[in-house]
Amino acid sequence: MLVLGIDPGLSLTGWGIIDAKNKDNLRTIQYGCIKTFLPLSLSERLFYINSQLQSIVNQYKPDVCAIEELFFLKAAKSVAAVGQARGAIVLTLALNKIPLFEYNPRIVKVALTSYGSADKYQMQNMVKILLKLNEVPKPDDTADALAIAICHINTTNSALY
Amino acid sequence: MLVLGIDPGLSLTGWGIIDAKNKDNLRTIQYGCIKTFLPLSLSERLFYINSQLQSIVNQYKPDVCAIEELFFLKAAKSVAAVGQARGAIVLTLALNKIPLFEYNPRIVKVALTSYGSADKYQMQNMVKILLKLNEVPKPDDTADALAIAICHINTTNSALY
Repeated sequence: MLVLGIDPGLSLTGWGIIDAKNKDNLRTIQYGCIKTFLPLSLSERLFYINSQLQSIVNQYKPDVCAIEELFFLKAAKSVAAVGQARGAIVLTLALNKIPLFEYNPRIVKVALTSYGSADKYQMQNMVKILLKLNEVPKPDDTADALAIAICHINTTNSALY
Repeated sequence: MLVLGIDPGLSLTGWGIIDAKNKDNLRTIQYGCIKTFLPLSLSERLFYINSQLQSIVNQYKPDVCAIEELFFLKAAKSVAAVGQARGAIVLTLALNKIPLFEYNPRIVKVALTSYGSADKYQMQNMVKILLKLNEVPKPDDTADALAIAICHINTTNSALY
């Protein structure tokens, strides 16, 4: 099962692809971060995110995508920016018929560390250990995307791989 | 100039198309509302909004689109739903290379009524009068979409028509 994990954002969208033969046999295929900047307009930024994500989908052909649920603790302005990027991302995946699974940030933390209040460094360290990487992927959004992909693998019945 | 006005939402996306020869010669081409419901998933709802909007674009070939700015006075959960629909809509328009113009709700009210705090009924009545309609378009989201299209026409230099 080839899992695409995504941590959506208008400025930074982290992504990572993991191949899972089973829960204990994870192979990191590729990861990265889609970056957009002002003064590009919202249309231009969403168009760019779509084109980059489409290239990733074309190249790696993921079976499923796991994405973080939108949470509402942040300021409405921040939710608006993330929400619009997330809408464009979810639509891009839907147009490619890639099944989407959404995970609450707390569930992602529990899946990786068994602790729902794990901090950023504990999470990033677990990503590094579980994927046998030499260093923590940067920026944070990329590590988060890989964490979400691992969460999906850990919470999915392996008969479905 | 054929203007597509959109009032975006996850449950209800109002739309309306107006042909403007000049500010005083507005012709209503068509209007309607794209509706999505639970228990459809977010992916399914955004896919449906995209497919309906794509049909509208294919049929009417608007020159420009005017859309309401996302405002942050509402609860974050509401901003999240509208934001995701709006992201999918903006991406759909960008993929069709339709220039997008965003208007603050207050600007839309001033453009139609010369009064930034006009209420819903004043706005809807002005839409009906300016477009010489027999009745106020329903639901509210459709009337709002037509109001945004009129706002774009009224605030655009007519040399650009």
